[in-house]
Amino acid sequence: MHRKVEIPRTWKFLTLALAIAATNGLALAQDVPKKPAPADIQKHKTSPGERYQPSLDVLKEQAVEQPGTKPGVPALSADEFKKANQIYFERCAGCHGVLRKGATGKALTPDLTTKLGFEYLRDFITYGSPAGMPNWGSSGELKQDEIELMAKYLLNQPAQPPEFGLPEIKASWKVLAPVDKRPTKKMNDLDADGLFSVTLRDTGEIALVDGASKKIVSVIKTGYAVHISRLSASGRYLFAIGRDGKITLIDLWMATPAPVAEIKVGSEARSVETSKFKGFEDRYAIAGSYWPPQYVIMDGATLEPMKVVSTRGMTVDTQEYHPEPRVASIVASHYNPEFVVNIKETGQILLVNYQDVKNLKVTTIEAERFLHDGGFDKSGRYFLVAANARHKIAIVDTKEGKLVKIVESGGQTPHPGRGANFIHPKFGPVWATSHLGDETISFIGTDPEKNKEHAWKVVQKVKGQGGGSLFIKTHPKSKHIYVDTPLNPEAEISSSVAVFAIADLTQDKPKYKVLPIGEWSGIAQGQRRVVQGEYNKDGDEIWFSIWNSKSQESALVIVDDKTLQLKSVIKDPRLVTPTGKFNVYNTRKDIY
Amino acid sequence: MHRKVEIPRTWKFLTLALAIAATNGLALAQDVPKKPAPADIQKHKTSPGERYQPSLDVLKEQAVEQPGTKPGVPALSADEFKKANQIYFERCAGCHGVLRKGATGKALTPDLTTKLGFEYLRDFITYGSPAGMPNWGSSGELKQDEIELMAKYLLNQPAQPPEFGLPEIKASWKVLAPVDKRPTKKMNDLDADGLFSVTLRDTGEIALVDGASKKIVSVIKTGYAVHISRLSASGRYLFAIGRDGKITLIDLWMATPAPVAEIKVGSEARSVETSKFKGFEDRYAIAGSYWPPQYVIMDGATLEPMKVVSTRGMTVDTQEYHPEPRVASIVASHYNPEFVVNIKETGQILLVNYQDVKNLKVTTIEAERFLHDGGFDKSGRYFLVAANARHKIAIVDTKEGKLVKIVESGGQTPHPGRGANFIHPKFGPVWATSHLGDETISFIGTDPEKNKEHAWKVVQKVKGQGGGSLFIKTHPKSKHIYVDTPLNPEAEISSSVAVFAIADLTQDKPKYKVLPIGEWSGIAQGQRRVVQGEYNKDGDEIWFSIWNSKSQESALVIVDDKTLQLKSVIKDPRLVTPTGKFNVYNTRKDIY
Repeated sequence: MHRKVEIPRTWKFLTLALAIAATNGLALAQDVPKKPAPADIQKHKTSPGERYQPSLDVLKEQAVEQPGTKPGVPALSADEFKKANQIYFERCAGCHGVLRKGATGKALTPDLTTKLGFEYLRDFITYGSPAGMPNWGSSGELKQDEIELMAKYLLNQPAQPPEFGLPEIKASWKVLAPVDKRPTKKMNDLDADGLFSVTLRDTGEIALVDGASKKIVSVIKTGYAVHISRLSASGRYLFAIGRDGKITLIDLWMATPAPVAEIKVGSEARSVETSKFKGFEDRYAIAGSYWPPQYVIMDGATLEPMKVVSTRGMTVDTQEYHPEPRVASIVASHYNPEFVVNIKETGQILLVNYQDVKNLKVTTIEAERFLHDGGFDKSGRYFLVAANARHKIAIVDTKEGKLVKIVESGGQTPHPGRGANFIHPKFGPVWATSHLGDETISFIGTDPEKNKEHAWKVVQKVKGQGGGSLFIKTHPKSKHIYVDTPLNPEAEISSSVAVFAIADLTQDKPKYKVLPIGEWSGIAQGQRRVVQGEYNKDGDEIWFSIWNSKSQESALVIVDDKTLQLKSVIKDPRLVTPTGKFNVYNTRKDIY
Repeated sequence: MHRKVEIPRTWKFLTLALAIAATNGLALAQDVPKKPAPADIQKHKTSPGERYQPSLDVLKEQAVEQPGTKPGVPALSADEFKKANQIYFERCAGCHGVLRKGATGKALTPDLTTKLGFEYLRDFITYGSPAGMPNWGSSGELKQDEIELMAKYLLNQPAQPPEFGLPEIKASWKVLAPVDKRPTKKMNDLDADGLFSVTLRDTGEIALVDGASKKIVSVIKTGYAVHISRLSASGRYLFAIGRDGKITLIDLWMATPAPVAEIKVGSEARSVETSKFKGFEDRYAIAGSYWPPQYVIMDGATLEPMKVVSTRGMTVDTQEYHPEPRVASIVASHYNPEFVVNIKETGQILLVNYQDVKNLKVTTIEAERFLHDGGFDKSGRYFLVAANARHKIAIVDTKEGKLVKIVESGGQTPHPGRGANFIHPKFGPVWATSHLGDETISFIGTDPEKNKEHAWKVVQKVKGQGGGSLFIKTHPKSKHIYVDTPLNPEAEISSSVAVFAIADLTQDKPKYKVLPIGEWSGIAQGQRRVVQGEYNKDGDEIWFSIWNSKSQESALVIVDDKTLQLKSVIKDPRLVTPTGKFNVYNTRKDIY
């Protein structure tokens, strides 16, 4: 069963680019624009652009400087540029990136747009594509002259995106149900801890799925392409953050769980977390943005923004100023009243102490550039985070507030998600990561007390199906480790997962079993990428997403963890582009 | 003796502008450019531009974007702009400001330069002025074509100044005497604690003056217009920082005290301090820059730069991003291993804990915008800092790391320097500030233990000679308070100081005595501004600077604190433009 894929150069480059763009949920461009066809035109009524419409007042006063123009590029007047800019940041930036470098949508830098030309851009904006580009013209969202303006705008150099400080954040803040109007006890019979929050990436929604019945409890409008869901310490509140920076706060105590507050923290964001330290349960929330580079501390029950802190600063190695250090993953410490905030471009790990927000204490730990995703070790004391483009893992002691070590991950571009913790039969407690850039799966010893000789070393590397892995998963009760490979270019590999038996890791080259989960789903069409295993509360079944494109059927496939047999397939027309799934219990307790 | 000056509107505006430009030393534009005359041409051989010549490699690779051009403005090619920019940041920015908004030199923004015109600018750069502008052309420092380029450059919009990160800082770092080559004991007979470090503003030097003999021990080349001198906790090392960001570290143990290391921390800077907490004496130094907005932690014995931290971030009130939050005053805590770093534009007070520089802990205290200069209370526990343009004083408890209170200063634009502490006959321990914008002198109660009812309130306001005060001074052994008014437009007021008897403060409107210090100096020419009283170690005499322009005679005047009589006048041809003075003992012990 041992397979190795020869990775072409372009693919290596792609994985690197993706890795840099992605964070610890799903962050990958799946867009393959097609020629617009009449049949597609009416499909996109619910466009991502509709999800959040910031008050025009917020944006119109923001000074955005027009870059210099070049010969041959359509000239825009200052007013036209301003208008196009406003449309861009309201409608386009969420997918195409604030700097037009691409994200879920394609890059739109002039080197690319000038090759496509004015007419192509105009028509594409007008009719959209089945891959997810909304039909802004035929849907009536934008007028003909606005579309032509945008096509011209895209041929020009991108502008510096506008700032989004407290005034803009506050203007976007809505309390849909004030605290005193909310239930005082749980008003439904759901096993809240059994729920899964499933990102429906391209519709800008999450589906809450009941763990026992496997039924969809509710589909809730959120920001676009929800990156992660997080649970408050009590398990009552669920926070979902879209890539467009919109946070939706959902009260699981309501008869039917529904949003009680929402806010937009920036033009582009990835991470949200809530305070978990004893005495601060459910008290605060924090969200980190890609643009502007900053984080926001909010009230945990209302999302009221309290404090905005910029992350612009010096890179950890050369100590030079970086204008755009994006906030990657955030976790809540169990050992101190702190959030662990990972700053990508500077490589600094911030321990943000929320005990006194007006006299905010932040420990800046020198780590490694390109921090991305990570998770705690089994004890919850140590936090391990990938410096993906540096192929390293930085380890922080959240009790002492210090860097423990930076280790080579052993493969190319580690992408652990939150990683996977288990007791290795030879090396004791380890934390595991797979890789985007190759087939390596690495185990790092995490027990400096009883297994000191193995601690903070890659104690073993094993080979999986191939590169393109996003998530590795196990559970304290499981004897298995699951490794997905949704971004592998081979269809068979991307639609299946590799499973290792923990007991087999005593071998030098342990074998793995391949579960053909895409096939099990019964879906025939599409690439059937299989992504992100997530355990149920009891740890006896693991759920995978079958992630097809928006116009194709998708599903959730549930595997019996003991037998490795198919247990159940969830299909529903509402399950459009499911990707990340977050079981309430495991997420709030950091079990992974 | 009670005088009040009606302050004209323009003067009020000027004081405000000066206040914003100045920090707790002397930061005031005295330049009154004159038509160049042949006699002046050879005087400027030692020009400020010579003091620090950064490696061309450092600057030439820095990308500085050329702003858009306007009709009628001389066009520069990209290469010309780059070259002019390099010359500007090497030669001109130290005085004229990185954004050309003026500092010790005049503002050079296009609204002003276009009125002067190309020929005027060219000739002024060529011949200089007696007020301090170097004769770049006639001295041979710049060639004719470079001068013409610079005149054109000045007619264009200013460019964003280059960054100055660790690579640039490190490139400027010079250890003139390594630690192991320095004396192991004091090699001179000087009473080091009795020394005064006197800023010779326009020559880019400091004079070390012996407190007992009143003789100049040494004149040392430093950065331009040294803003402050600070002493290491042991008293061995003296740090002088120029407005051009150059720090000179002087070893007072050498046979003749001399520089042992130097470094440039930015294009423009104001503050330097050294670690004073028990166990960390002489260990670290810190310097804050105006541009780039950042601070640098250095080794205390060598100035080796260890860590650069940006201060760009959110304003304290509106929480909006500010691109240029300059570092104003810095003091070293006696209660924690911390530096207190005051960020002007954002109004945040940073407690920078230097216990673990690699895992740097910083407490950001929300205070008030436009933080400037300040000092400790008598106990050394509380730090009081002026938010000058907001007419307020922010008070921080450095033991607890929290804001205590923000109080109205009671006057217009407080400028305390480090302030003055004494026991008020009615209100107990108070800290005092005078004002730039009016004649108010305010006393704030600082004893929350035994005088709780007066603590953190303006307990009394008295009236001095007028606005334009920079420094207020007393000493624990003194019965007097001295208030200078060097920036008052009335010559008589600017060349004298007001003295209050502390015992008289029981009165509602206490009278003050005027000491005609300018007159006492025996100097007839110039405006004879009297500035910055500084006590000797024993606290029985107070020294003032007579600050004339560069081509005029200046002096130091020493007053007997008991009798308020003239004690001594120090004149020396080397005493050119003396301004701030720092007695070694009082500075290292924070006695003021």
